[in-house]
Amino acid sequence: MTARLTISLDAMGGDRAPDVVMEGVQLAHVRMPHVHFLLFGDQALLEPLLDAHPELRAVCQLRHTDQSVKGDDKPSQVLRTGRQSSMWLAVDAVARGEAAGVVSAGNTGALMAVSKFVLRMLPGIDRPAIAGFFPTERGETVMLDLGANVGCDANNLVEFAVMGEVFARSVLGIEEPSVGILNVGSEELKGNDAVRAAAAILRDGNLPIRFHGFVEGTDIAAGTVDVVVTDGFTGNIALKSAEGLAKLYSRLLRDAFSSSWLARLGYLLAKSALVKVKMRTDPRRYNGAMLVGLNGITVKSHGGTDAVGFANAIEVAVELVTHGFNERIKRELARLKGAEDSPAQAAAI
Amino acid sequence: MTARLTISLDAMGGDRAPDVVMEGVQLAHVRMPHVHFLLFGDQALLEPLLDAHPELRAVCQLRHTDQSVKGDDKPSQVLRTGRQSSMWLAVDAVARGEAAGVVSAGNTGALMAVSKFVLRMLPGIDRPAIAGFFPTERGETVMLDLGANVGCDANNLVEFAVMGEVFARSVLGIEEPSVGILNVGSEELKGNDAVRAAAAILRDGNLPIRFHGFVEGTDIAAGTVDVVVTDGFTGNIALKSAEGLAKLYSRLLRDAFSSSWLARLGYLLAKSALVKVKMRTDPRRYNGAMLVGLNGITVKSHGGTDAVGFANAIEVAVELVTHGFNERIKRELARLKGAEDSPAQAAAI
Repeated sequence: MTARLTISLDAMGGDRAPDVVMEGVQLAHVRMPHVHFLLFGDQALLEPLLDAHPELRAVCQLRHTDQSVKGDDKPSQVLRTGRQSSMWLAVDAVARGEAAGVVSAGNTGALMAVSKFVLRMLPGIDRPAIAGFFPTERGETVMLDLGANVGCDANNLVEFAVMGEVFARSVLGIEEPSVGILNVGSEELKGNDAVRAAAAILRDGNLPIRFHGFVEGTDIAAGTVDVVVTDGFTGNIALKSAEGLAKLYSRLLRDAFSSSWLARLGYLLAKSALVKVKMRTDPRRYNGAMLVGLNGITVKSHGGTDAVGFANAIEVAVELVTHGFNERIKRELARLKGAEDSPAQAAAI
Repeated sequence: MTARLTISLDAMGGDRAPDVVMEGVQLAHVRMPHVHFLLFGDQALLEPLLDAHPELRAVCQLRHTDQSVKGDDKPSQVLRTGRQSSMWLAVDAVARGEAAGVVSAGNTGALMAVSKFVLRMLPGIDRPAIAGFFPTERGETVMLDLGANVGCDANNLVEFAVMGEVFARSVLGIEEPSVGILNVGSEELKGNDAVRAAAAILRDGNLPIRFHGFVEGTDIAAGTVDVVVTDGFTGNIALKSAEGLAKLYSRLLRDAFSSSWLARLGYLLAKSALVKVKMRTDPRRYNGAMLVGLNGITVKSHGGTDAVGFANAIEVAVELVTHGFNERIKRELARLKGAEDSPAQAAAI
């Protein structure tokens, strides 16, 4: 656990890069002093930030590039012309074995495209997915896909189930994670063809997965299952709808507590308990989504996060590396191939 | 507004029917003394409830039937054998002109099937949708479809936009409601074929609709638009994901306020302000989803709601009747037909 470990960073990715990236590194360094960083970006901007944190010199190496990927760059364009961008070089460091994983708060589509191109897919995986965390009554749930694929067939969903299961074991340390497929009802006949066919494959029991069946939107935050599987269109919208409601709730509470001096006093008395609620639902705590299905560890940080959030994304990458996530996924996929001749054939039934 | 108006009720629909239905009627009666009710259900159960509220005798008429639709009855089965059920008879009262609208807390799929069969679709509408409310920073937003259709094409989404727009004007009283299509990003190129084609039709400007463009999950609770259009699969899951998070939040707050005597005292001091937050986010307040696209007013109440929620669903039905929702929708659809030769042709471009 304390062996040296290097994470490469796209220092120019995100709304407030490179400042937030460097502050995130500083926070991560306090928590994980054994982690080293390869920072790709504009040296003229990065050097002064590093001067402000001289204690980081020993764990940070700067690699200069003046190219970076913009938030509205198209993935195809980045693939053609972005080889010298900070994002590409950071991902490439993983491919070259210089780093064990990469973190970027940049353009999600571009990060996905570059990672697919540079790191390649895992054998047997059709499509990568974005896996992230969701706060629940029981702790945390893994949810995927959060937006990599707008349309998914049954095989994609089954692959997501396998990858999500390994993810939950690696990052959340759950021994036998339960897996559910997100649907509009829990009955077998509900939903579209893709979710029904995927559920049939998982229900079959040939795969070494504890399949719970269908779950509904309310089950996500209830923590009914450890892994929620869905297509990227629905997953992205479900996550952001809940995020939106959490924001509304915080806003209403803030307004309520400042509406009178009595309410303000009440807030002060209950403050230490309320801070815990805030921490439990703090989106920064759930920052750091992994691009799963790639032959390498790529973690996407929210573009608008702050240093605390970015440090959490770094921690997710470190956890995945430490627990050998990619090796485990490869083993699981091989086990799958043994259990089922081919998921594609099973889906065709 | 004070003319006599009759609403028919499926008195046996919902988890705690008929008790909750009758208590809901009682609350609705206090708020809307001009509304009369036709209650379909088991007389042996309903009479004693009515005896407990003698003031309701003057506005309630009981119609006995011993059949009712169960929560797990399949819609096709109800269509074949459910003609004497309380749900069917209540819907039929609207078709026969005995009632201006119907409210049921029963099986959603069955209510949709029976309403389609008995009331028929509006001319020019392909598929009905479920439209409901969502609390936002600015007040309330209409969202549809919430689960009637698991798959939707561009034409369906355009129809939902038109119906949602009229719904927002009728029930929320918004003069020129803005309409957005739910997507994984706000850029034109994002999403699947259906949302892109629907947006292209609405963006064209030939339809008399204030189209905002794509919105994301976080925009729902932010109140970015007055009407959020989506397919029933995504809409159902988005709504329930947010509902789940709201429950989690309430639970965490409740735990926080009872975690110490200081926190309990703080709660008491801030209570009047906190009650307002609770009221604003109370799911009962947003109970009452309309099945739009039918030639008649059918309102679906949440099956697990209480009397307050059921009374709100009755109020939604009364509002829709009072504002001539169905006549307005018919006019809008005719206007649409004039503006665009045929939405089907436009979508094929």
